[in-house]
Amino acid sequence: MTVSPLAPKRFPSLPDVEGVRFATCAAGVRYEGRNDVMLVELAPGTTVAGVFTKSATRAAPVLDCQAKLKSLPDEGAAFLVNSGNANAFTGSNGKKSVEAITQAVADILDIPQRRVYTASTGVIGEALPHDKIIDNLKSLKDSLSPDGIEAAADAIRTTDTFAKGSVEELVIDHEIIKIVGIAKGSGMIAPDMATMLVYIFTDAKIPQADLQRMVRDVSDTTFNCITVDSDTSTSDSVMMAATGASGVEVNCSSEAFRAALYDVMLDLAHQVVKDGEGATKFVEIRVKGAESEEDARKVAFSIANSPLVKTAMAGEDPNWGRIVMAVGKSGAAADRDRLSIAFGNLQVAENGWVSPNYSEEDGAAYMKNDHLVLCADLGMGQSSATVWTCDLTHGYVTINADYRS
Amino acid sequence: MTVSPLAPKRFPSLPDVEGVRFATCAAGVRYEGRNDVMLVELAPGTTVAGVFTKSATRAAPVLDCQAKLKSLPDEGAAFLVNSGNANAFTGSNGKKSVEAITQAVADILDIPQRRVYTASTGVIGEALPHDKIIDNLKSLKDSLSPDGIEAAADAIRTTDTFAKGSVEELVIDHEIIKIVGIAKGSGMIAPDMATMLVYIFTDAKIPQADLQRMVRDVSDTTFNCITVDSDTSTSDSVMMAATGASGVEVNCSSEAFRAALYDVMLDLAHQVVKDGEGATKFVEIRVKGAESEEDARKVAFSIANSPLVKTAMAGEDPNWGRIVMAVGKSGAAADRDRLSIAFGNLQVAENGWVSPNYSEEDGAAYMKNDHLVLCADLGMGQSSATVWTCDLTHGYVTINADYRS
Repeated sequence: MTVSPLAPKRFPSLPDVEGVRFATCAAGVRYEGRNDVMLVELAPGTTVAGVFTKSATRAAPVLDCQAKLKSLPDEGAAFLVNSGNANAFTGSNGKKSVEAITQAVADILDIPQRRVYTASTGVIGEALPHDKIIDNLKSLKDSLSPDGIEAAADAIRTTDTFAKGSVEELVIDHEIIKIVGIAKGSGMIAPDMATMLVYIFTDAKIPQADLQRMVRDVSDTTFNCITVDSDTSTSDSVMMAATGASGVEVNCSSEAFRAALYDVMLDLAHQVVKDGEGATKFVEIRVKGAESEEDARKVAFSIANSPLVKTAMAGEDPNWGRIVMAVGKSGAAADRDRLSIAFGNLQVAENGWVSPNYSEEDGAAYMKNDHLVLCADLGMGQSSATVWTCDLTHGYVTINADYRS
Repeated sequence: MTVSPLAPKRFPSLPDVEGVRFATCAAGVRYEGRNDVMLVELAPGTTVAGVFTKSATRAAPVLDCQAKLKSLPDEGAAFLVNSGNANAFTGSNGKKSVEAITQAVADILDIPQRRVYTASTGVIGEALPHDKIIDNLKSLKDSLSPDGIEAAADAIRTTDTFAKGSVEELVIDHEIIKIVGIAKGSGMIAPDMATMLVYIFTDAKIPQADLQRMVRDVSDTTFNCITVDSDTSTSDSVMMAATGASGVEVNCSSEAFRAALYDVMLDLAHQVVKDGEGATKFVEIRVKGAESEEDARKVAFSIANSPLVKTAMAGEDPNWGRIVMAVGKSGAAADRDRLSIAFGNLQVAENGWVSPNYSEEDGAAYMKNDHLVLCADLGMGQSSATVWTCDLTHGYVTINADYRS
């Protein structure tokens, strides 16, 4: 598989996080000859938080994780993720597989079953061959290591063309706190192969309710502000574990921690977009001047999800008319004659018409960039929103029209 | 331009409608060497109704038409449509062009300006060279003829690969009533080139309020139930004229008339979808078992607009998992384990899993059809909805990524 042209040059160097150990193996769930299972062991005291897809057809592992978030952190915990099979839309078998895996992980790591969180990503509608995973748990346990995170980021990939990682370190109370994360996903999207899964680890000590609130808040402006194709997976999960091993206490009012977490989450979210199926352009949509934040988001997503805007970006076509169209159809309060549009710093349209100094040549030159910024000022109020997406290319159609046939 | 593989074999034979005369000409608004203006003269007594795009960035001609709908039918009326330039997002020039054209048409046909309805379709953001149209009005008037409707359907095309027409005749009070319509559009869509415009004519005598109500009602289950790419034009217009020349009175409680109007509108709506940019499959989405009609429509459009569903259809991939995903993300009340999915009469999934007798081979064979029916039964209630769309192909990306560059 060709690596996305928008991929970072290399996987970042991620430090160990005390209290977190990783192992991976090739269980042969679906893929041959590559690792497809990640086991993460979390030390006693670790609090766990998560946000999940709102899909009404959520997969069994998601329902199981949601039910277990508030478990007490006294004992150890674990994440177990497989790629290749999503264990989604598998009827009553879905729950049975989750039961079997979580029980087996609990037994082998000597932790309570309610502290084992699983995720599955890959094809849907096929029963998960969970015995293949369970058969590997002993050797997974034996290979647990604090520095296995890059291999873990690799094992959870499906159609991703590169492994995704990010790190921020900050100093609180004269101690270095680490926030390390990995992700997989190459759409929002796609029950078939492109669910977004994110795992973030910190050695800060954070009460579960505070951790949950921060993960939810920060996801809202990062993972919930990206779109590849407007489709939502039945398995999307963002989970975070705080081991407390640093001894440094953090709560949800810590602006420094929140800011560092934002940086990690935004970096991972951007990497997911940059690995969007067929993507050749990373597109930032900035909307301001909306009557409300809800309106600003509506307009931003209307632009970001418009096939006509996305194909124009793919064609390097400075087609600002399609942005006007997307503003108009969004359902948000807008007025044609107050709308301004810019590409980056290039003013394109204002007062209901093309800007007097705008030239099609300048617009076309701007479109050659890999990273495009499309700005729409509605001129209606004070609210703003930013979302990120990619272009819609022949590559997207090829990947998704030809995948199973 | 290659004609859509889904196009009807030929343009239908459309009868004259008494009180309606057509003329076309090549004004050179943008295209060279083809007709690009349609003039329709409507006899005194004609009532006119219309429904229009809800876009907040509606074009000037749309705003003008909306303001004029309730004019008294005592005097004659006219429709004037140009292709090649949408007169949209043209600032204050937009309104000036509409003023100039409607005044000139009123003068030449000796009718009030408030009875002249225009529409423009084509590129946006460029001032409409309305003088080119006005210069042709005299010769247009001289060539008005009752049998010019096929040429009119041709003149209003932009990226359409075929002209679209439809007819129903019915008998009321022992008289034959005609309903004749033409349309253009190859997306919902696209300020650039693919606005949907529809003109329908009947010789029934219908009060304006009744005509308006029927056009609105029937549009809701026809033109408002199609989608090519979820994008909405700033100029979409459906207009209907009832000349009353037959002397037969019809009001909005006439089920026979309503049914015939539905057939004409649905036929034209389907033709627009069949001319969807790059379309190779005509896809009908039938949702039932929803808790409310709103939920049924949400689910139907979520499936119809999903790029992953649409690319699967393009690839003839019986990927029912993507339908599950689209149901889940729709926001409608759904339960994974009550959901059933069928392709036509082929049961695919039920009770939260694949159907016991379903085989991938049967699914793949079904997908070879040109006309696909995707059925989702939510198992939640009694409400249903049907919408129509087309697949998402390389052709779509080619047309829209490469159009202006």
